[in-house]
Amino acid sequence: MTRAAVLGSGAWGTTFAAVLADAGTQVTLWGRDEAVVRSIRDERRHEASIPGVELSAGIHATTDVEEALAGADLVAIALPAQHVRGIIAPFASLVPDGAVAVSLMKGVELGTHARMSSVISDAWALGADRVAVVSGPNLAREIAQHQPTATVVASSNREAAELVAAATASSYFRPYTNDDVVGVELCGAYKNVIAVGVGIADGLGFGHNTTATVITRGLAEITRLGLALGSRPETFSGLAGMGDLIATCASPLSRNHTLGAHIGRGASLEEAIALTRGTAEGVKTSQSIRELAASASVEVPICDGVVTILEGGAPRESVVEALLSRPRKAEVD
Amino acid sequence: MTRAAVLGSGAWGTTFAAVLADAGTQVTLWGRDEAVVRSIRDERRHEASIPGVELSAGIHATTDVEEALAGADLVAIALPAQHVRGIIAPFASLVPDGAVAVSLMKGVELGTHARMSSVISDAWALGADRVAVVSGPNLAREIAQHQPTATVVASSNREAAELVAAATASSYFRPYTNDDVVGVELCGAYKNVIAVGVGIADGLGFGHNTTATVITRGLAEITRLGLALGSRPETFSGLAGMGDLIATCASPLSRNHTLGAHIGRGASLEEAIALTRGTAEGVKTSQSIRELAASASVEVPICDGVVTILEGGAPRESVVEALLSRPRKAEVD
Repeated sequence: MTRAAVLGSGAWGTTFAAVLADAGTQVTLWGRDEAVVRSIRDERRHEASIPGVELSAGIHATTDVEEALAGADLVAIALPAQHVRGIIAPFASLVPDGAVAVSLMKGVELGTHARMSSVISDAWALGADRVAVVSGPNLAREIAQHQPTATVVASSNREAAELVAAATASSYFRPYTNDDVVGVELCGAYKNVIAVGVGIADGLGFGHNTTATVITRGLAEITRLGLALGSRPETFSGLAGMGDLIATCASPLSRNHTLGAHIGRGASLEEAIALTRGTAEGVKTSQSIRELAASASVEVPICDGVVTILEGGAPRESVVEALLSRPRKAEVD
Repeated sequence: MTRAAVLGSGAWGTTFAAVLADAGTQVTLWGRDEAVVRSIRDERRHEASIPGVELSAGIHATTDVEEALAGADLVAIALPAQHVRGIIAPFASLVPDGAVAVSLMKGVELGTHARMSSVISDAWALGADRVAVVSGPNLAREIAQHQPTATVVASSNREAAELVAAATASSYFRPYTNDDVVGVELCGAYKNVIAVGVGIADGLGFGHNTTATVITRGLAEITRLGLALGSRPETFSGLAGMGDLIATCASPLSRNHTLGAHIGRGASLEEAIALTRGTAEGVKTSQSIRELAASASVEVPICDGVVTILEGGAPRESVVEALLSRPRKAEVD
């Protein structure tokens, strides 16, 4: 039987532990919050992050990371993108030889512009063949409710991707493998930035015609940067690209969309952060992606617009208007 | 000054007449319903189709088709897809020499599998260089409220596309030109079928993860058929493809989505049609597209599933489940 550890007891880490358990994988969830860990272990509940859901049986939870990692064949990580490096670095010697690390995170590290799988590789001195990422239209709460969901497992190592797919597949969770790690991770991170932009447009009172245009041009923008970084076009039109973008932008549960909507209705960034439960990764990711795009000489007008609005550098309306009125006559440049 | 006629006084025809008027084009709207025409002309209202909106000044409305077509440089047509041929054929001799016909319709004719621009070409004996189509994320009610909206004007004749673009461009309506008429029309028709499918999934109680997956695979399916018919891939990832698909599937105002949701909640096709205001073009278009795909030897599982459910040939759940559990391991075949 495959043994898995999950590091991080937020909504997605806890839900992913349930997915593993339901797929017949033996799973230990590690979290730092004693009360949360106790509630998951003893009551099968995590009310703060996944209210109203009874978690699957078979999730062992602990605050002892050594216990969690012992004997693990795969180690899934769902920690805040900007802090994961510092949190996991001390655990390097505890990671079993041959274990596959799985990033569940969606962000790009500030300063280094590193994707999450690179951060894990660095922190634990793992080769790319021992790292995989999971990304797709995967709203945690719906998965926790056993809504049927498809996802993408990406790794440069096909065996690693297939190990993760086999350890997670169940009647409601359908993993598809892909070898384009860069593309899948870029999509997962960037969609949070587009979701902030769509939230801003919503908050300003724009309708579906406008938000559909922002989403469509958003995917074009993600694809443009991804191709410059060596990704394959199919990734962007697939579940981890378009699929995740649509699910995130459509969901009123998305923190990034929620934060954007508060900004659109006139809140300052500080106010919007305070009004949004949990971390909206898109705020910091928008800065990282702007820098990454500049280093690759790729134009990213929506990401630029989001950064400018979040910094308070321009009226919100002007940025959305500017986006719609770019001086192009033919649709394809 | 450009003179335009619009044939059809439903929500989209009336709104498009307002778009033309706001762009400074002289416009006459033709409709068959005396009361609707009088209300548009005298009260600037069309409560049945666009409730609560005061229409732009400058729309002349008439029930006299000869009056509407006299001197027109462009003739836009927004009539029910399955009936347009029969309605417009008798007007052929009234169409001014050199006028450009503009299809605003989204459907594929039953029996002939003809796209709407072909139906117009046939009915009025016009060359392809005198026909254009307008399609994009264009929910009529939002445009009637002057929400900023982008659209695609497609024609094999660049001058014709630019004439239409110039006659419609305003502060809230931004047309982009494209020469891929087949692709733009296929997107406009097919998205109604996908919207029915998304509506069915919604009605069955599936969440955003599932609907995002159906939309993503829907666009892949549209693209696959479009490429087989000679279209360019960029059309499908653009505003007339992905943009329109997202706007339609997101909107609670979409008739196709609404009809699908009634079916998903257990209504028969007859009941769902009765419960849906106006014509849901996706019902008949799904049959035409299934036949078109068969003749091109292209697999269209979502379209097939929609036809099967609408015909009552399979339980609703089984079709959605089957869609999610297609036996593929790698995301890209």
